[in-house]
Parts: sequence; structure tokens; C-alpha cells
Amino acid sequence: MYNPQPIIAFQGEPGAYSEAAALAFFGPQALTLPCHDFEAVFAAVAASGAATHGMIPIENSLAGSIHRNYDLLARHALAIVGEYYLRVSHCLLALPGVALADVRRAHSHPQALSQCEASLQRLGLAPVAEADTAGSARLLRERQDRQAAALASRRAAEVYGLNILAENMEDSPENFTRFLAIAPQAQAETGPGPFKTSLVFGLPNDPGTLFKALSVFALRDIDLTKIESRPQPGKLWEYRFYIDFVGHAASPVGARALDHLGEIATELRVLGSYPSHQLR
Amino acid sequence: MYNPQPIIAFQGEPGAYSEAAALAFFGPQALTLPCHDFEAVFAAVAASGAATHGMIPIENSLAGSIHRNYDLLARHALAIVGEYYLRVSHCLLALPGVALADVRRAHSHPQALSQCEASLQRLGLAPVAEADTAGSARLLRERQDRQAAALASRRAAEVYGLNILAENMEDSPENFTRFLAIAPQAQAETGPGPFKTSLVFGLPNDPGTLFKALSVFALRDIDLTKIESRPQPGKLWEYRFYIDFVGHAASPVGARALDHLGEIATELRVLGSYPSHQLR
Repeated sequence: MYNPQPIIAFQGEPGAYSEAAALAFFGPQALTLPCHDFEAVFAAVAASGAATHGMIPIENSLAGSIHRNYDLLARHALAIVGEYYLRVSHCLLALPGVALADVRRAHSHPQALSQCEASLQRLGLAPVAEADTAGSARLLRERQDRQAAALASRRAAEVYGLNILAENMEDSPENFTRFLAIAPQAQAETGPGPFKTSLVFGLPNDPGTLFKALSVFALRDIDLTKIESRPQPGKLWEYRFYIDFVGHAASPVGARALDHLGEIATELRVLGSYPSHQLR
Repeated sequence: MYNPQPIIAFQGEPGAYSEAAALAFFGPQALTLPCHDFEAVFAAVAASGAATHGMIPIENSLAGSIHRNYDLLARHALAIVGEYYLRVSHCLLALPGVALADVRRAHSHPQALSQCEASLQRLGLAPVAEADTAGSARLLRERQDRQAAALASRRAAEVYGLNILAENMEDSPENFTRFLAIAPQAQAETGPGPFKTSLVFGLPNDPGTLFKALSVFALRDIDLTKIESRPQPGKLWEYRFYIDFVGHAASPVGARALDHLGEIATELRVLGSYPSHQLR
């Protein structure tokens, strides 16, 4: 299905949740390529060829869509070849030999700190904001700080040689991030599915056009799992819509719905059809 | 229409674009109350009564929606009583007596810096990121830095006693931010309109429900100007939708559409009907 040793670009430092998602999706033999920002992930896959694939977060169940990546999907001619739902479980990490009773502060990304607010209060740990989760684990190691812990992934503990003092620090267990695997080329249809298809389209600024666009799916009993809108660059108050639907773009009903949408949309691009990750 | 001297809470420092929007909408006699974050703006209007109104940005034509404020509108029982489209025009500000030729660096919020990228390059100014636009003007004043300029609003020049070296520094003229005026109570219908209505609703997680929800407007030729979706707190992969439509919630056709939507939605709240700001 994939190269024997794919190289997966991701945003963040080694030990980031994106890297954990990449290894869970592509398998532990995959090589990973840390990138400074999401633009660099797309560039590594699209232009330089430094990576065979990218793994990008597109939506968190608590915080919502990562709109920057929606914009980048429209800007680059890459294909979505897979999806993966990662259960985001924050571990409390400390230097070897440090006990929970020694720790005074918890360092992490502000979003992780806020997701673990009740747990930190219960343990009497003061939150300290850092640029990212894996980076706070790295800094802990570099500073040899024995009064501090980091909130980060289990993977970050392995990467930076830290101990896991506590697991599942997040206050809500319903914390998932959906990741998309992207590649230069669309993937050939494999297996029986079920499939999911992602597309992006523009609409003329006329009354009722979004209703008409959705009708091409509703009239064919095609289930939509997500709709997102973003500004159209250079067109004031016009939007570009992103839709995920259940089914394959090359299935008879999928192809007819897309043909029909093409009659309404000013532009239309299928970003990819890929096996649906069956989370539950 | 309003109190003789309304007090308007806004996020940011004196001279922020939100303050400029508040004064443009409520009139120059309004008092303004700077708040540290958007939560504090809602709290000042909702709970403490420190402010009679709030002015919050909800969408920028280039960067998209301010999703945090969509979430806060759903969480608080405040009403939208008006909208204002502010043309975001960045001025290059410097200390009195400083000429353009003396300036080496431009300080501002990263989004403002990126919106003025070409202008800064043309002038040979190095961009320096700060926490916000008005704050960079304040810092310039405090540091008495004669080699630096700030990218901020015309209002910030007045507040901090700076000179305007150049106007309209932004590369794209189509840079508008839509602001919403919020208040504890909904506003009585005034004038002939045209009106706009904002609402938020939840949908059961069944196929075709969004299509059905949009049909209540499309079948009545009601024009939608915006749709936005956000995660439902505590409901995995369920969404809450925000819609703006042209018309008043209390008009015969508006009331019938909302009744009809009530048959489909799991929850429904009208956030407000208010005079539409006629920008063009």
C-alpha cells in the first residue's frame, strides 16, 4: 500500500502528537520529518520531495477545525490519501528519579494546559505556558529541571528519556484529533471501504446556492460528515466550502453527485477518496 | 437609540481597531473600556455591568472568522444589537520629529505585518512581531525608539501622540473586519431596515439535517449571508451552526422560517436582529 519506508513530514518537534499520529497510521517503520510550520509540511511533500507524505491535524473534537490547514489544502495540489483519529491523551512527564511529590510546575502548550486544568489543580501544579507540548518535554530534559513536569505525549517520553508520572491527565476523555495523510498523488481505490471523500468548491454569491450545493448530496442520500467555510482569497465576503461525504468519488452515486455539483460550483476539486477510519 | 453615554467594552489596548470600530458605531461621545481578552468583554457586559455594550470582531475578510467569539456568543445570553464593517487600514506611526528615512524597523502584530509585507519591503523596513497593533504603538512611545515605527490604527496615533508617516500600508485594499455590538438585552425594532438576523442552532446527527435546516430559508427565498460551524461542547463530532440571514426575526417570513427550523433543530436561539450595515 505504501513505500516500504515512507518519510512523513509533520509540524512540530520530535514527540509531537502529529508524529504519534503519523507512526500510528503509517506504521512504526516510517521515518518522520519534523517541520517548523504547516507550510513547510506541504512544501516538503509538494515541492522538495523531501517527504513521501505529510500528516496534518485538521480538526480537534474540543477546539474545532485547524483552518490554516484547510487553506493550505486548497492552495496546494496534494491529495488526501487517508485519515486517522488520534485520542489525545496527555501524560505528565518528569526526569528519571523525580517523584510526583517533587514537582511544582507543569509546562506545556496553553491548549494542553487548559485541557488538564482540573487534574493540575488536584495535584497542586502551577501551569507554565510553552510553545508546544513536545518542546516542553525537550526543555525539561535540557534544563534538568527537577521541580517541573511536562504535559506531552507518551511518544515524547520515549524521545526525551522521561518518566511518565501520570497518564490521561485531560479532564475530558472525548479529546480526539483528526489527522489527514497527504501525498503528491491520489491513491488508487483499495479494499471494500467504507470510504470518505473530501472536496473543496466555490459558489457564486447568489441566494440559495449553498442549499442547491447540499441538495446534490441530500437528494442521493449521501451522508455529509463535515462542512467548513473559509474566505475566498481576493473575493470580498465570498466563501470556499469544504465538505466530507461518506462514499467514494468514483462510485456511481458519488460521481453523479460531483457532476451535479459541478453545474452549481464556480470551481470544484476532489481532494481525495480514502478509507474511513472506523473509530467507534 | 442608545444611552447618551454608552460604555463599550473591547478587547485590546487603547487605540485598538476594536476601539476604533466602537467609536465609529456608537459615536465619538461613547466611553470605551479596554479588556484583556474576549471573555472579559462578555463578562463586562453580562455580569459586572461595567459596560453597557461590547464591540467584538467576528470575521476578517482575509483571515476568516474569529471562532472564539462564535463560541462566546453561544455561551453567554447576550444579544447582538448591531454590526459594523471597519476598513482595516494600517498606518505607519513614529515619534514626533522622526522621518521615514530614520526608521529601520516596523513593529506590530504578526497579522498586520503580513498584511503589509510588500509595503515594508518597498520601504526597506524589517518586521518585528509584537503582541498587538496598539500595544506596539504604546511601546514605541515608552521606549522613545527613534529607529522604529509601529503599524497600527489612526486612532492609535491620537492615543499615543505619534506621527503618521504613511497611510494605507496594507497590500490588499479589501481588508475589512466585521464587528458585532452586543448588549444584555435585544434591541427593539427601529427604522425600516434592511435588517440582518443572527442565530445559533444544533442539529441531530442524522443524514441530511443540514440540508433540511437550510431549506427553511431557501424555500422562503431568504438570503443567507454567512454560515459557520463549531464543535458542540461535550458531544463528539456534533456541531453547532451559526447563520446570518437578511431580514428580521419578527417579520412574518422570518418568524415562519424560525418556527420551521425549530421543528428540525435540537436547540435554537436567535442572537439578534439588527440594522444591516450597508457597506457598498
